[in-house]
Amino acid sequence: MINPFFRNHGPLRISEIIKSLNLKKDNLKKDFEVHDIKDLFSSTSKDISFFHSKKYKDIAKKTKAVICLTSDTLKNDLPETCIPLIVDNVLVSTSKITSLFYPNSINDDFDESVKDINETDFRDKVKFGKNVLIGNNVTIGSNCKFGHNTIVEKNVIIGNNCTIGSNNIIRNTLIKNNVKILDNCVIGKHGFGFFPINNKNLRYPHIGIVLIEDNCEIGCGATIDRGSMSNTIIGKNTYLDNQIHIAHNVKIGENSIIAGQVGIAGSSTIGNNVKIGGQAGISGHLKIGNNVEIGGGSGVIKDIPENTKVMGYPAKNIREFLRDKK
Amino acid sequence: MINPFFRNHGPLRISEIIKSLNLKKDNLKKDFEVHDIKDLFSSTSKDISFFHSKKYKDIAKKTKAVICLTSDTLKNDLPETCIPLIVDNVLVSTSKITSLFYPNSINDDFDESVKDINETDFRDKVKFGKNVLIGNNVTIGSNCKFGHNTIVEKNVIIGNNCTIGSNNIIRNTLIKNNVKILDNCVIGKHGFGFFPINNKNLRYPHIGIVLIEDNCEIGCGATIDRGSMSNTIIGKNTYLDNQIHIAHNVKIGENSIIAGQVGIAGSSTIGNNVKIGGQAGISGHLKIGNNVEIGGGSGVIKDIPENTKVMGYPAKNIREFLRDKK
Amino acid sequence: MINPFFRNHGPLRISEIIKSLNLKKDNLKKDFEVHDIKDLFSSTSKDISFFHSKKYKDIAKKTKAVICLTSDTLKNDLPETCIPLIVDNVLVSTSKITSLFYPNSINDDFDESVKDINETDFRDKVKFGKNVLIGNNVTIGSNCKFGHNTIVEKNVIIGNNCTIGSNNIIRNTLIKNNVKILDNCVIGKHGFGFFPINNKNLRYPHIGIVLIEDNCEIGCGATIDRGSMSNTIIGKNTYLDNQIHIAHNVKIGENSIIAGQVGIAGSSTIGNNVKIGGQAGISGHLKIGNNVEIGGGSGVIKDIPENTKVMGYPAKNIREFLRDKK
Repeated sequence: MINPFFRNHGPLRISEIIKSLNLKKDNLKKDFEVHDIKDLFSSTSKDISFFHSKKYKDIAKKTKAVICLTSDTLKNDLPETCIPLIVDNVLVSTSKITSLFYPNSINDDFDESVKDINETDFRDKVKFGKNVLIGNNVTIGSNCKFGHNTIVEKNVIIGNNCTIGSNNIIRNTLIKNNVKILDNCVIGKHGFGFFPINNKNLRYPHIGIVLIEDNCEIGCGATIDRGSMSNTIIGKNTYLDNQIHIAHNVKIGENSIIAGQVGIAGSSTIGNNVKIGGQAGISGHLKIGNNVEIGGGSGVIKDIPENTKVMGYPAKNIREFLRDKK
Repeated sequence: MINPFFRNHGPLRISEIIKSLNLKKDNLKKDFEVHDIKDLFSSTSKDISFFHSKKYKDIAKKTKAVICLTSDTLKNDLPETCIPLIVDNVLVSTSKITSLFYPNSINDDFDESVKDINETDFRDKVKFGKNVLIGNNVTIGSNCKFGHNTIVEKNVIIGNNCTIGSNNIIRNTLIKNNVKILDNCVIGKHGFGFFPINNKNLRYPHIGIVLIEDNCEIGCGATIDRGSMSNTIIGKNTYLDNQIHIAHNVKIGENSIIAGQVGIAGSSTIGNNVKIGGQAGISGHLKIGNNVEIGGGSGVIKDIPENTKVMGYPAKNIREFLRDKK
Repeated sequence: MINPFFRNHGPLRISEIIKSLNLKKDNLKKDFEVHDIKDLFSSTSKDISFFHSKKYKDIAKKTKAVICLTSDTLKNDLPETCIPLIVDNVLVSTSKITSLFYPNSINDDFDESVKDINETDFRDKVKFGKNVLIGNNVTIGSNCKFGHNTIVEKNVIIGNNCTIGSNNIIRNTLIKNNVKILDNCVIGKHGFGFFPINNKNLRYPHIGIVLIEDNCEIGCGATIDRGSMSNTIIGKNTYLDNQIHIAHNVKIGENSIIAGQVGIAGSSTIGNNVKIGGQAGISGHLKIGNNVEIGGGSGVIKDIPENTKVMGYPAKNIREFLRDKK
């Protein structure tokens, strides 16, 4: 996961982690440091991980994590090299520990660090409209343009030959070359991810970024949320029409075409050369193969294999759809 | 109905009301004053009401209103204490009289009263970005933040610990404590309510407000319209994702979760602990019970009893939906 | 097609056109000038046209164009008065030649010509909020208002008694009288029209405008794209609710009512007195007759004859829909 922005405040001592979760340290024989929090697959022997569902049993068995947040019923699937840390709610605890490592990933308030572009060195380097604001930790390549009232908040890297329209808000985003972003977009905000708790939901941290590859075009009014534990990615030469919503952790391939008002829910993966018609919706955690065509207005609620045309709600093979509707 | 904003210009004399409707005053024996215009149920003996459909016959029979806009065919259902005022189109006449009592509720033009926040006393009280504007009759609690280019127009009350993002426009809205509003929202504008008339539609007044209770979060790009004759309400700890449209008079309960691109049409009521999936749509004037789950992409066109899971278009019980789609 | 904005840079010499397409000029006996590029039907004997599909065979046979971009298989359907110019991809070549005639129609970058309204003559003529920007080639009638942060870019004509809200971006648009545009709209941008080419799509020019007739109201968050080879039109006294997307070349009739979050895809035509429910979607290149009612959430994928009520996905007669769903 490419992420130049959220600084890891680790290493943290295990005793500190246990204390922040209000756990007893009975079953922990000695204190030590962990360097980062990662998923079961990515963890090294210096990391803490989390294991909350038997779906991940096979990965859990092979994890290299030195310690792992989990439940009493799951702990036996962890290898001997990994100390289970039993908690009541694995995901809530994961969220708390992630916040310890990455305290800046929780807060999505407006960026107080921004300055009028005329007060920055970008003044002489880029073309810009009225009332353009630039935050800290922003890098911009050559030959870029920024429309009126656009706010480039902190943690943004932009390549060469990019054209950003007016009224946009961008943060925590890496934009490659020759990208066009039209008007009124919000890119890089945290996703709609939280633990529902009566009277006071608990937001979990979003330590991912939005990554927009070369030659993309993003239409007006898009909202593209950054990833939580991975990145949100728009692949090379993919075009998005107006009023599209891309949720956190979504990954879209290359040369895809997505028409107006489409919504893609969290963590779904879209292949290369995919065409999605207007107002279609794709549920979360799905895999849409390469060269798939999804008819306008469709509601996709299961994986779609590559080279398929689908339509309807729930979306099915287009021939089947047209036959059933006769 | 809580409404601290629209000042009632009453009392008005009945002769004045009759004149504004271009009616003859033949059947009115003496002139008197009325204090307000209210629905049949809420009216007191000092108010004028309106009765336009036999659906409301039972309420009409018991109304305390002293006088009532109605039609020749309905007038006999009013009690003897209530003078019928016969008009050609009850709703159009109601709209005209409401405008007489509340002349400021028609106009939704931009607020000319706003000042740069640096020219107001809020300068020392809240954190704010660049180009923040504040209108007349605005109250803000402690520890609040306002992002860049956000416009708080007239008639807004905000509690403590609220975080408002950038590029928002808010008017005629009461926001309680610990509320987060992300970016690019328009909150408190009049709804899509008007009488279709060839060549020149007639807008009716919206004298309600938007009320956002404690601990809510409103995603990017939301439009939440204020009520016409009642308020639009978002209940405590309810979270809205991006690009959601909430029409006038909608009431949403507590602890509900509404995913991206959902639309709720006018005057529908949503219970507590309701979950609504992305892109679902709910027709107007419906009642969705507590603990209901509505699948993403569904189209709800009838009431949903509490504790039910529904999906599809038209939305039906989820088991039925999945069985039919096999 | 009314279009006061995009200046035709013609006449161009045929030798110049052939060169720009990298063609050999073997089969062209003598050089001459053409004045404009038009479709097969509109072309005069001074124009170049394009013929890319046998669907247009009957029109091709009667075209008055002096020369026509086409393919080897289609060329024989052109009349003897029309010289066929054989190219590999007719639409891509058409796009290139259109760009030669109308070089300003490709670029939709932010308008660098805008000035703060206080620095223009409109300062004394219209009411306006903070931070309003006005571009070149803008005309505004009497008694108009412009809300905060609104950007009227180049090529805009606005009639009398128009009220434009805050945070709007308008370009290449002709607005007649008594029109209301609420907040956060983007009007007049190019549509989602391009040739998909691996690694680098090719945008085609949009030489049309947006035309908004008298007494219309456009809700918050609308995106209305200008036409490519014709105009996008919103007919007299038509009202649009919030978050609506109107694609390029769409033509909507008079007295129509379109509810929230509706999307209308490119080149569709909607009649007079049409009612479209919330979140409905209409595919491209369709014809919806007068007095049609389309239920909320419907997906329309074929033409709808006048005086019909439809619902569902795909939308069908409402009686049939309700019967099938029982």
